[in-house]
Amino acid sequence: MAGNARETGRTVASRILAIFDAFDMQHPQLSLSEISRRAGLPLTTTHRLVTELTRWRGLERDENGNYFIGLRAWEVGLLSPLHTRLREVAQPFMQSLYEASRENVHLAVRDGLDAMYVEKLAGPRSVPIISRTGGRLPMHATGVGKALLAWESPELINTVLSRPLERPTRYTITAPGRLRRELEETRQRGYAVTREEMTLGSCSVAAPVLDRAGAPAAAVGLVVHSVHVEPEKLAPQIRMAADGIASRLEATRDDPYPGYVHDFAANHQRPSPGTGRAGRDR
Amino acid sequence: MAGNARETGRTVASRILAIFDAFDMQHPQLSLSEISRRAGLPLTTTHRLVTELTRWRGLERDENGNYFIGLRAWEVGLLSPLHTRLREVAQPFMQSLYEASRENVHLAVRDGLDAMYVEKLAGPRSVPIISRTGGRLPMHATGVGKALLAWESPELINTVLSRPLERPTRYTITAPGRLRRELEETRQRGYAVTREEMTLGSCSVAAPVLDRAGAPAAAVGLVVHSVHVEPEKLAPQIRMAADGIASRLEATRDDPYPGYVHDFAANHQRPSPGTGRAGRDR
Repeated sequence: MAGNARETGRTVASRILAIFDAFDMQHPQLSLSEISRRAGLPLTTTHRLVTELTRWRGLERDENGNYFIGLRAWEVGLLSPLHTRLREVAQPFMQSLYEASRENVHLAVRDGLDAMYVEKLAGPRSVPIISRTGGRLPMHATGVGKALLAWESPELINTVLSRPLERPTRYTITAPGRLRRELEETRQRGYAVTREEMTLGSCSVAAPVLDRAGAPAAAVGLVVHSVHVEPEKLAPQIRMAADGIASRLEATRDDPYPGYVHDFAANHQRPSPGTGRAGRDR
Repeated sequence: MAGNARETGRTVASRILAIFDAFDMQHPQLSLSEISRRAGLPLTTTHRLVTELTRWRGLERDENGNYFIGLRAWEVGLLSPLHTRLREVAQPFMQSLYEASRENVHLAVRDGLDAMYVEKLAGPRSVPIISRTGGRLPMHATGVGKALLAWESPELINTVLSRPLERPTRYTITAPGRLRRELEETRQRGYAVTREEMTLGSCSVAAPVLDRAGAPAAAVGLVVHSVHVEPEKLAPQIRMAADGIASRLEATRDDPYPGYVHDFAANHQRPSPGTGRAGRDR
């Protein structure tokens, strides 16, 4: 189509991805001109690409004309093995942890130098906390993050320790020497502990989900809204959950949908024709 | 870039979206040539676009060289209000339902003529079932689907009734007259019931989450692995959960992240620089 090759230097693919990149947690809804500005694209290009993305429902529009990430992008994203395998395998183990504790239960993987939250269970009596599925937090300040980091390679640990580390609270351990000892202790005791290092008044206990090479594929943990937590009492069940997830991941290695049974749904997977959904509040 | 405007008739944007569309539940991992074939694109075009998508981590590669939906696509998709608002608001209510029943708990919205599963809670003792977060099932055969359909407009109900309806089991109600009466009864009693209509041996009870216009924004329900279910005993707590979700959605109307507190994470949202994650088993 006309215009595709006109703005030189960036591919059309990169422009589309820049439009997706314009959205983030602080900017979940954007006007066309905000997308244009944040993606660094001319308004006409933005309009053309956003129109195509909206037709596909990668973007949708609210009643004010602002755009947000659409149902189809959500649907495609959930085909990631983070969701179909890891989350699906871990969820019943997390549920057991929740039942035993009634606290926030977290599942995270490492991405770059962040802990990325793949699943979070919280009940009506769990305190609202900072984590969010799909969100990122620094590894050194969170329970699941420390559990991921402590079992990582010395190279990766060195990379983290050599950088300026964020300090969400006055209790966050950021001194490289102290953090290194903390990670060694974590590895020795088999689980990670944080005490008000991410949020004042909250502590966490977490254990790594180790793959057969002994590397941390994920970490699972509890966040407890108390400073009087006894980690050694919570640790056994968390480690049991982590080991259970690891075994099940290994046992279902070749199954892309380990939590899943039945052929019918596999055949009923495409958007059915007919009226699209009315733009109601979600 | 060279080639962007060469293959006429389809825009580059549509080609990228066709690559995402090549993946689905039955095809979560694809080789380059499979992507090319399923997207209807020349191999060279596919290679170029897949390379860009992989750099962005919209796609990732496994140890056999096959591609799957990547972490960044998953991360962007979770910015959808289906996740950030609906799922986040509903999760504690679903958790209460789970605690009271230990059964599978479902949250779904209507998309076109499908029930689309936004969240599913299952414990270690819940039976594995057909539903999957991000998956679709027909409305007329599922509890949440009937709860969505029964409160829809007469036009939409007519559209569904005028089509050939899938019949996953011999108990699935597909006769238009009978299904119409069933939907009327559902509306009158305030909740939907299915008895082995999706899966033999499983029954479900579900209630709609109504918006202030009285239209079904979502539905929440239980799937019980028994044919001896007494829907009238399960219904009150399901309706309470549905009404609770509706109230909370209304109360947080202008909040894109109702389940979420704290500024720190909002500032820690971009992939941090540094080593990407090694391609381990997820």
